[in-house]
Amino acid sequence: MGSWGGNVPNRNLLNPKSVALIGATDREGSMGLQLTKNLLLGKDMRNVYAVNPNRENVLGLKCFPSITEVPEHVDLAVIATPAKTVPEIVDECGQSGVDGAVIISAGFREVGEEGERLEDEINQFQAKYGLRILGPNCLGFVRPHAGLNATFLRNNPKLGEIAFISQSGALGTAILDWAVSTHVGFSMFASLGSMLNIDFGDLIDYLGGDPYTKSIVLYMEGVGSARKFISATRGFARTKPIIVLKPGKYVESAKAARSHTGALAGNYEVYDAAFKRCGAVHVDEIENLFNCASVLDSRYLPAGPRLAIISNGGGPGVMATDSVIDNGGKLVELSDELKMALGEFLPPYWSNGDPIDLLGDADVERYDKTIRACIRDPEVDGIIVIYTPQGTAQPSDLAKNVIKIAEKKLMPILTVWMGEKEVEEARKLFYTNNIPTFSTPEQAIKTYMYMYKYKRNFELLYETPEELPVSLSPPTSHLKLMIQKVIEEGRTVLTPDEVDKFLDAYGIPIAESYLVKNEDEAAMAASRVGFPVVLKVVSPDIVHKSDIGGVILSVNSADTLRTQYQNLIESVRKAVPQAKIYGVYVQKTKKFNHELILGARKDRDFGTVILFGHGGTGVEYFRDFSIALPPLNQTLAKRMMEETKIYRALS
Amino acid sequence: MGSWGGNVPNRNLLNPKSVALIGATDREGSMGLQLTKNLLLGKDMRNVYAVNPNRENVLGLKCFPSITEVPEHVDLAVIATPAKTVPEIVDECGQSGVDGAVIISAGFREVGEEGERLEDEINQFQAKYGLRILGPNCLGFVRPHAGLNATFLRNNPKLGEIAFISQSGALGTAILDWAVSTHVGFSMFASLGSMLNIDFGDLIDYLGGDPYTKSIVLYMEGVGSARKFISATRGFARTKPIIVLKPGKYVESAKAARSHTGALAGNYEVYDAAFKRCGAVHVDEIENLFNCASVLDSRYLPAGPRLAIISNGGGPGVMATDSVIDNGGKLVELSDELKMALGEFLPPYWSNGDPIDLLGDADVERYDKTIRACIRDPEVDGIIVIYTPQGTAQPSDLAKNVIKIAEKKLMPILTVWMGEKEVEEARKLFYTNNIPTFSTPEQAIKTYMYMYKYKRNFELLYETPEELPVSLSPPTSHLKLMIQKVIEEGRTVLTPDEVDKFLDAYGIPIAESYLVKNEDEAAMAASRVGFPVVLKVVSPDIVHKSDIGGVILSVNSADTLRTQYQNLIESVRKAVPQAKIYGVYVQKTKKFNHELILGARKDRDFGTVILFGHGGTGVEYFRDFSIALPPLNQTLAKRMMEETKIYRALS
Repeated sequence: MGSWGGNVPNRNLLNPKSVALIGATDREGSMGLQLTKNLLLGKDMRNVYAVNPNRENVLGLKCFPSITEVPEHVDLAVIATPAKTVPEIVDECGQSGVDGAVIISAGFREVGEEGERLEDEINQFQAKYGLRILGPNCLGFVRPHAGLNATFLRNNPKLGEIAFISQSGALGTAILDWAVSTHVGFSMFASLGSMLNIDFGDLIDYLGGDPYTKSIVLYMEGVGSARKFISATRGFARTKPIIVLKPGKYVESAKAARSHTGALAGNYEVYDAAFKRCGAVHVDEIENLFNCASVLDSRYLPAGPRLAIISNGGGPGVMATDSVIDNGGKLVELSDELKMALGEFLPPYWSNGDPIDLLGDADVERYDKTIRACIRDPEVDGIIVIYTPQGTAQPSDLAKNVIKIAEKKLMPILTVWMGEKEVEEARKLFYTNNIPTFSTPEQAIKTYMYMYKYKRNFELLYETPEELPVSLSPPTSHLKLMIQKVIEEGRTVLTPDEVDKFLDAYGIPIAESYLVKNEDEAAMAASRVGFPVVLKVVSPDIVHKSDIGGVILSVNSADTLRTQYQNLIESVRKAVPQAKIYGVYVQKTKKFNHELILGARKDRDFGTVILFGHGGTGVEYFRDFSIALPPLNQTLAKRMMEETKIYRALS
Repeated sequence: MGSWGGNVPNRNLLNPKSVALIGATDREGSMGLQLTKNLLLGKDMRNVYAVNPNRENVLGLKCFPSITEVPEHVDLAVIATPAKTVPEIVDECGQSGVDGAVIISAGFREVGEEGERLEDEINQFQAKYGLRILGPNCLGFVRPHAGLNATFLRNNPKLGEIAFISQSGALGTAILDWAVSTHVGFSMFASLGSMLNIDFGDLIDYLGGDPYTKSIVLYMEGVGSARKFISATRGFARTKPIIVLKPGKYVESAKAARSHTGALAGNYEVYDAAFKRCGAVHVDEIENLFNCASVLDSRYLPAGPRLAIISNGGGPGVMATDSVIDNGGKLVELSDELKMALGEFLPPYWSNGDPIDLLGDADVERYDKTIRACIRDPEVDGIIVIYTPQGTAQPSDLAKNVIKIAEKKLMPILTVWMGEKEVEEARKLFYTNNIPTFSTPEQAIKTYMYMYKYKRNFELLYETPEELPVSLSPPTSHLKLMIQKVIEEGRTVLTPDEVDKFLDAYGIPIAESYLVKNEDEAAMAASRVGFPVVLKVVSPDIVHKSDIGGVILSVNSADTLRTQYQNLIESVRKAVPQAKIYGVYVQKTKKFNHELILGARKDRDFGTVILFGHGGTGVEYFRDFSIALPPLNQTLAKRMMEETKIYRALS
């Protein structure tokens, strides 16, 4: 009855020695029947009890009227009864000392108030007894190596090394079914449902220590506890790849916030930043989730983005080239040595570059020699082998050869056997030998680049913010005092001179500027910084200065300066008579080629997030920005900026 | 022996009554053997002759030593002999009155000079006898309905209504193999090889009139004759969808040209503009080529982008939503009527919006009623039906039901049966009943949007440039005179004042400006337009003005104007002593929020192309531009601009 502590699911729940099914039934087509059948698959490995007050027995199992009547201690209770009966059953589970429960039943928050009330009741019993709960409104979970299937799935997932946690039951079902045909096996499948108690962080934390699990695949709509998720993922992402599919790109961003930062930093982008920060691989299509799951299962990753494309057809080679560049990869600059080596056995009119076109009549030997030559070359980070059904190389013979080479795991080798009927047999060979295989070059290349990004994220994963070099460290005390004052005045926006003080303290160049109190001082300031100048009112009471005539751009000469100074003060007085005016900020007009935006806001799930990008008018259309979670050190800040187009335009 | 005229392949070549194979052989594993076998498949429909001076007979066919010895007129000669023998054979074909030849053999331009020489010889004989040639270096072609297979493919493509023309033999083989398993059939498959004579335009022109062909799929690396292609495609795209996969996105653009326009308007973008202009559907992945081919085969297209997503799982619905927006589609705003109608039979807690979540326990009836209600709703343009293997709806029963509804072709209905084993049977039903089906929502939605874009392109297809409204018509005669003068002076670049005259004539606002001859005039001009001003030297001999100090920005006051005027003239005199100076252009400094670029250049294949986009520094990084082929009318110009982000930022 040992537990991993408050935040991890009770081991007994996920690895039970005894199971009770509450709602066991033999009614045809019912979930209860499928659940009973599935649980009975493991009856040699644990005791299985059926609970149903209306049945004598189900599929040969004696039925107990209540969980409290079961004679043995129950590690795991699986609940599949109507929603309204569930709170009482959870209470009984607690009374009987059950360690954990899976609530399959639906009909809770998704049906409205009544359902929420039921959830509240369950929560109270959960807290009272400290039992862990998966669900409700979920498929349950499967642990193939333990012969445990606590779901109502019609297919029993195959044993493997991938743990798959899905917040959508429907998607989970579909992916498991898919997995059957691509020979993907699982160490665990769990459907999270409404995440009343157990969420992503809990399961990742458990799976991090699970010897059967080599990689973790998530379908996530909402993170649950962000803190638990980030800490668990950061802890394990290096040893166990964590791949996430997160839909809802537009749902959140549609609820446009007022400020640019708010509108841009949609929830989706924050999730993306969080995944990057904790080392998870974020994929954007179901297909990629699946492709990555099969590849990241392997224990070697690309050292770099340079891909050798080996193909027996020019067309697929050209397609592959587009895809390499589209996805941020690189073709290999073939060294003279490699060209020489290849020239020795390739026909005289081979492509003489990457993609390496072996020509339509390529046989197994030509492929073999080329692959080996590429592996030996220090400029090659990974290899995509493409085969089209032509020439003398038989697809399965070639596959066997490639498998032999790839098994040595000297370098990632991804295979693309194009076509269907002719390559069916070869593909099966790849699947069963755990060699990544795809039906188009694009899929292979996307997957390779995910592998590489995953690898590259490691470099950042344990970057801990170091102190800034002394020369760059701002004299924080005076800034703190300034902020203190702003807070005391109840303001949430800095005045232009305060902004400049801040930027200046951090060594960010600002336009030469003076805060002046009258026209004479303004004239003096302007002659010092040079015309044209900008005038901005400085007042703690005015945020949107431009709207009330509090900013005058392009003051071109001393003659007009005084008049325009007066105009400005008058406009402001008229618009906000009670405004306290500290003075006017006189600033040299700078011609900027590019406007930047730098912002921060609180995200509901992940706390403070930072935004950097292309600012100015049209910012909503260009959508050229990146998001990161603080704290950032210089490497992380640079990496963040590098993700934008404006950064490349500036540098 | 009728011909469709000079530009279309001789009918007899593509529909031969007699065929001769030159290079027939029974050597195991040879192309010649496979060709013989394939041609013999049609021996009941036409005479098949074998030519080989070294054999008595092949597979029971008597061998003739030369094509000249064949006793009957031969419509089509298939040549599969070593490259160096081919010119002479083509000569003999010509002598014997053969109508057309397919040259399977490789070893021509792709192997270098010697091969090019052989091609030249073939070209001469081709011209001499006027016989049409497909290839060389190709797979040949297949006409399933005529029982003609003039290729060395190991699989015989199934009969269908799609014509597939591939410039890559390898890709062609792979796609044909794929087609077998997805039940796609073909009216023709042709491998173009090096396109010595017959190219895309020729075949599209032929297929446009071919009753067996409903849609045309192209894999294109280079267009061949652009004029022939555009004219054929424009002529037939409306009645027969033409779908193109064009790789080489980066190959051309890497050879960066000097000017921005040159560098940006890579060949790929020009091809894209050309496809759009002539109504072809341009897809970017092999997968899409295939998906579109199966869908555009159907005879009804979306009226709009509004998609109803019907699913029995929340997760796939959310994924689909992202994909709809990603691809420029729209979700349906469910009308009150539709909500009422659905509310009558859906469970009380259905999603109450699009995506329409039928919930996990949905049965066939619930799907059926929902689909029918959506079809009746005027706000719905198309339907994606998603099924995940759960609940009481059996996949095949549901498929049969959907097929029954979809066959009425009231609206495009695309299906996504997720999973594999459980839905295999259902997918086969869709294939055989010609109902579009996909394994992920993303694929279905991408395909729907291609269907919609294809439909939308029609609206533009026959837009013929109309005259500009009189108010906008420039007084062309004075501009023509100006250009005349520039040409006479041997210049290729306009001076700043000439540029302004041009823009002004077309009603494009320009900054207030004066061409002045001395400092006094400059001072007067500056006081008229207002400081700050820009000074630019006007000289027919100076193009890069900034480089030699011929531009002074931000002249802020009358005091400095005179000095800066002198500085400018001095710098220019010093840098280019012999330069003729017309004067100095004094221009008001304008603060531009956005810089635009508008350019034109000659493309190798398609002639003049126009570029519009986001200009200024960083243009290479933002890559926000669109390309179009002139002539443009106002609709086409607007459509072109709408494709950029900068347009949305401006409007």
